[in-house]
Amino acid sequence: MPRPSEDELIATFFAPLAAPGGLGLRDDAAILPEMPGQDIVATTDMLAAGVHFFPDDPPGAVARKALRVNLSDLAAKGAEPRGFLLGLALPEDLTADWLAGFAQGLREDAAAYKCPLLGGDTVKSPGPLVISITALGAVPEQKLVPRKGVAAGDLLYVSGTIGDAALGLKLRLDPVRSEPWAKRISQADAAYLAERYLLPQPRLCLREALRAHAHAAMDISDGLAGDLEKMLKLTGMTARIMAADIPLSSAALRLVQRSPLLLEPILTGGDDYELICAVPPSESEAFETKAKAAGVPVRAVGTAEQGEIPPVFKDREGRALIFARPSFRHF
Amino acid sequence: MPRPSEDELIATFFAPLAAPGGLGLRDDAAILPEMPGQDIVATTDMLAAGVHFFPDDPPGAVARKALRVNLSDLAAKGAEPRGFLLGLALPEDLTADWLAGFAQGLREDAAAYKCPLLGGDTVKSPGPLVISITALGAVPEQKLVPRKGVAAGDLLYVSGTIGDAALGLKLRLDPVRSEPWAKRISQADAAYLAERYLLPQPRLCLREALRAHAHAAMDISDGLAGDLEKMLKLTGMTARIMAADIPLSSAALRLVQRSPLLLEPILTGGDDYELICAVPPSESEAFETKAKAAGVPVRAVGTAEQGEIPPVFKDREGRALIFARPSFRHF
Repeated sequence: MPRPSEDELIATFFAPLAAPGGLGLRDDAAILPEMPGQDIVATTDMLAAGVHFFPDDPPGAVARKALRVNLSDLAAKGAEPRGFLLGLALPEDLTADWLAGFAQGLREDAAAYKCPLLGGDTVKSPGPLVISITALGAVPEQKLVPRKGVAAGDLLYVSGTIGDAALGLKLRLDPVRSEPWAKRISQADAAYLAERYLLPQPRLCLREALRAHAHAAMDISDGLAGDLEKMLKLTGMTARIMAADIPLSSAALRLVQRSPLLLEPILTGGDDYELICAVPPSESEAFETKAKAAGVPVRAVGTAEQGEIPPVFKDREGRALIFARPSFRHF
Repeated sequence: MPRPSEDELIATFFAPLAAPGGLGLRDDAAILPEMPGQDIVATTDMLAAGVHFFPDDPPGAVARKALRVNLSDLAAKGAEPRGFLLGLALPEDLTADWLAGFAQGLREDAAAYKCPLLGGDTVKSPGPLVISITALGAVPEQKLVPRKGVAAGDLLYVSGTIGDAALGLKLRLDPVRSEPWAKRISQADAAYLAERYLLPQPRLCLREALRAHAHAAMDISDGLAGDLEKMLKLTGMTARIMAADIPLSSAALRLVQRSPLLLEPILTGGDDYELICAVPPSESEAFETKAKAAGVPVRAVGTAEQGEIPPVFKDREGRALIFARPSFRHF
């Protein structure tokens, strides 16, 4: 397939994903009709090839991850997706087949998450592929769940399981399995962890539970340890957390039981895209019930308390874990 | 100044530009409170160094252009700016001084256009600087001015003057003034045209006139000839336009009088960021009065008529002008 022009690219690949408000992607802008009683929530994430994804990742997966990391931010705010804008800086050597795969992945997720394409811009670039997505969502008036708001005594909940993506990334970076722990992993576990890195699961189903019961929430993109610290310090909070209480997948659990040092990348690696939130104890039962009904596993991993220090993670013997690098940096 | 971390970058340079809804740029997302009776208008534009601006352009001008091209899209829809999200893919060698200049330019325009920063994302990139801006605006319910809507008989108006930026770009690409026309240009004219390329003027002041009187509008980013064609063909329209009726700055007029071939880049070059709009004759007087009150010069350059061909530009002798490349492509 020859490389299409910008107009062909839009008409062929992206116009089929467009919402009515996208005006066929043939206008200067998109329209999002007034939503009475709803505030707009907006978030943006940029992904560069070689930094946020591997240039040889399947194009559909790259597209889906780019959208999902934005949906994860909307989820953390208790918001419902309404649509997104897409910016693409395309290197010359990107093929039409790659773009077709990218658009197909985007289309599937736009439909699955009811988050249609509203508009975009496509430019050529002498550098690597850069994807910029801005997602727009809606939240009932004044019900946005902030990052800042943890109070002393709040239970700190984590959704899903932590560290799978960091382990998946380690495996991806070590294709010949040179590390001892990687040599012994089962194919099924390796595939599971690789998938968790490739395709995060935005926890949008938690939005009502968060809006109803959480004082604060954020999504974990740069590692649980660093992101929890960011959320806690906004209100002068800290926490003591038993590492054994952190929810792990059975794949991660099997690895860490044999190689305890993997606890560090599990707690500090990036790309979890799970949520952390703070819920007052009086609401914890109701929160857990709603989360269960929404089909999202959540687990309380500690209690917020006043203090200026970063949250302390302890091992089974009560010793504080010291991390070389508390937070993953995409920057 | 050493290169700051992402958190320092945001806190130092960008947090001072943030709207209250930007939540201090320390949350996952921004909030735009409900605006009763207003629809949201969203637009996004991406700019890559070496494609949309020169790597040695002043950083403040790069920032302002990146914001203004988005504001120009809002202007074309009759919308009022409400805020923007900023994505930056930063090469390793970008200095803190450059970033300080960039943030300062952004700050000035965010204030001047009442369009505060709502959020953003900053990533490292192995390639050139890529800037992605998504601007959000508001328009009274169902009053968005579409691109599609030109009716037969509508007068076709152009704001400001056409072609200055294309000439400014030509001069920029020819610093030794090798072309005959460029040798003879006055310093003042050269500076004027360079500035028109560097800093577009989004015609936001026209928004009320457009909403009240225009059937359709768009901004001219890829050349008058090609963009007018795009707008007209959405409703099966064409037009005959006398090139002599196109509003030119006195700098451009002096050049084209001596070098008539410059008419081609004037009509087909990019980066005008003026508006074209279609106004029924019964409303033209009212439209012109409102535009004048808003301080934006507008001029009718032709009349829309049914037809499948691209608009025809004619010289003083009535001969149709044939362009080698009807539309400028950033792609």
